[in-house]
Amino acid sequence: MSQRFNFQIDATDGPARTGRIQMLRGDIRTPAFMPVGTAGTVKAMLPENVRSTGADILLGNTYHLMLRPTAERVHKLGGLHKFMNWDRPILTDSGGFQVMSLTELRKMSEEGVKFQSHLDGSKIMLTPERSMEIQRLLGSDIVMCFDECTPFPATHEEAEKSMELSMRWAKRSRTGFDVGEEHAARSALFGIVQGGVYEDLRERSIGALTDIGFDGYAVGGLAVGEGQETMFDVLDFTMPKMPTATPRYLMGVGKPDDIIGAVERGIDMFDCVMPTRSGRTGQGFTRRGAINMKNARHKDDTRPIDEECSCPACTQYSRAYVHHLIKSGEILGAMLLTWHNLQFYQDLMAGLRDAIAEGRLAEHANAFRTRYAEGDIEPI
Amino acid sequence: MSQRFNFQIDATDGPARTGRIQMLRGDIRTPAFMPVGTAGTVKAMLPENVRSTGADILLGNTYHLMLRPTAERVHKLGGLHKFMNWDRPILTDSGGFQVMSLTELRKMSEEGVKFQSHLDGSKIMLTPERSMEIQRLLGSDIVMCFDECTPFPATHEEAEKSMELSMRWAKRSRTGFDVGEEHAARSALFGIVQGGVYEDLRERSIGALTDIGFDGYAVGGLAVGEGQETMFDVLDFTMPKMPTATPRYLMGVGKPDDIIGAVERGIDMFDCVMPTRSGRTGQGFTRRGAINMKNARHKDDTRPIDEECSCPACTQYSRAYVHHLIKSGEILGAMLLTWHNLQFYQDLMAGLRDAIAEGRLAEHANAFRTRYAEGDIEPI
Repeated sequence: MSQRFNFQIDATDGPARTGRIQMLRGDIRTPAFMPVGTAGTVKAMLPENVRSTGADILLGNTYHLMLRPTAERVHKLGGLHKFMNWDRPILTDSGGFQVMSLTELRKMSEEGVKFQSHLDGSKIMLTPERSMEIQRLLGSDIVMCFDECTPFPATHEEAEKSMELSMRWAKRSRTGFDVGEEHAARSALFGIVQGGVYEDLRERSIGALTDIGFDGYAVGGLAVGEGQETMFDVLDFTMPKMPTATPRYLMGVGKPDDIIGAVERGIDMFDCVMPTRSGRTGQGFTRRGAINMKNARHKDDTRPIDEECSCPACTQYSRAYVHHLIKSGEILGAMLLTWHNLQFYQDLMAGLRDAIAEGRLAEHANAFRTRYAEGDIEPI
Repeated sequence: MSQRFNFQIDATDGPARTGRIQMLRGDIRTPAFMPVGTAGTVKAMLPENVRSTGADILLGNTYHLMLRPTAERVHKLGGLHKFMNWDRPILTDSGGFQVMSLTELRKMSEEGVKFQSHLDGSKIMLTPERSMEIQRLLGSDIVMCFDECTPFPATHEEAEKSMELSMRWAKRSRTGFDVGEEHAARSALFGIVQGGVYEDLRERSIGALTDIGFDGYAVGGLAVGEGQETMFDVLDFTMPKMPTATPRYLMGVGKPDDIIGAVERGIDMFDCVMPTRSGRTGQGFTRRGAINMKNARHKDDTRPIDEECSCPACTQYSRAYVHHLIKSGEILGAMLLTWHNLQFYQDLMAGLRDAIAEGRLAEHANAFRTRYAEGDIEPI
């Protein structure tokens, strides 16, 4: 029976869990990696090929889409799914993170954030209510609360003030989401835990959000320069306080070993531009670490990027060819390497899901990390 | 039974013919359009998708490949077909055209052309013998003679001198090709008719080439700025003198109506960067003329690029979406528009082949031209 939102946990292994989120547009196997489709496209990929790697859900960026082609236009054209030819779930962020990063061009207030468009310089106000409206117009399946991503580093006082504002905005986001009754009946709303690196603030943030009530809870304000050790420290004291029956999403993470460590700590969902961006800049992920495909050592290498990968880039082409394409600035280089990197990330998630289901996560994670750290084998 | 090279004409309609070239790597339906895969890739396309549009053969550029990754490297890696994952026929040009266009960086002699690499400035000598060797190393199926593409305009004296040099080089190309016995037993060599806009020179060039003997004959030195009227004038007096039992290839042509007019005059093969280059610069071909997908009039248009096209860009996406991608500089925009343009060109060829087979080429060509000239219909 199809339902708006249901999270089913099939197995646990320590704090880690595997299962599925059931939504009207399809199931999301967890732990899940969401490829980023910033401007209505996962860059250099056809959506059916993104799907073929094993992706159950994409992420869309409110900030980019509200400016171009605009949320109203996407709505008029039938919504984001139809626009970009992806009929499975889409999670949209709130636009907050991108707007905050326009440090010179924005002005914060209790009401929201006023900013200048990077495209035409026009002045735009983004509020929790407007963010909910935009995500509704896009037809998002999982809507994110509008919040302030607390900068790093921040003092306890700064982080507290920022977290409290985000909690007031979370309440307004909930209301703004719920007024769109028709859309709310088909989608889900996630709250975002803030509080920087401070345990007491993270705990208060979780309390404030669970009082409001959301379908899932994200951990925000990480992967902003604090480093993996600090990120894991924050997860270590935050995760045990998070609701267990709902999905937990670590925003903007990350490198393969970031994801593994976060899954071990109980995270269910991830998004990151790394596989797609790397695919356009010549970095390929392999089971023996990341490699720079621009490096001349690949020019005669008949091996695939990753011997164990099933993607078309690895089954049909040599490193020598991908190297040639990337050195020549050929679009096909970005296409093949992006495809491979997305396959690598989905294989990573599938491996973690299987390991949790079979109660061997620690062993699997350690073996993966060891091999990943060993580095690439030179061709004979 | 598989054979090195056989040209079978199934039907004629006036000077126009339809049939197939049979080669060891597959048949080439004629009239044929060859997408250009300059540097070992049809830009922004996976080879299986190029094939899905109906392409039976690709063109590869000797000049680009000899510089990067080099012919020796491609050979070591198993040849161009394996390198780029295309197992059907490949025609390679001789490198002459690109080298001649380096007007400031090259020096002509009887021996060949000395030029500077545009990549690293190194000095390289290209001769008929070296061109044959490179095309053999690449594993080309249809090898083109090394010639001088006579510039336009050229006086009778200039065109004569240039044509005579090309004929001496054609003889050396034939010898250079034949010494590679193993490769010659699996591939074909085409001569190139030169002589500028002068009937007597074209006739003499055909005589010189047929005395040597080739598997096919190309018309060179056109589509270099002379305009469609002059190009058709040259074809009008050249084509009746060309051998009829072998394929005739018009190099570097062209726009849809150039191709139609040339097919009506008896040409069997074409290549042109137009569909692929246009795909990266926002121009889309439709049955009602070419359209600029950057134009703001497409931004709310839910129609496909071309209502009658079967390609994925047209069956799965709106003009509004393709416009959005191209305006946003998204790689997927180039991917979809290139795919569509290649499908358009292959559909054009299929339509011409069917019309010739059914003896209604004039009617078909006129209807196509009329509609193409009418221009795009505005959305309601």
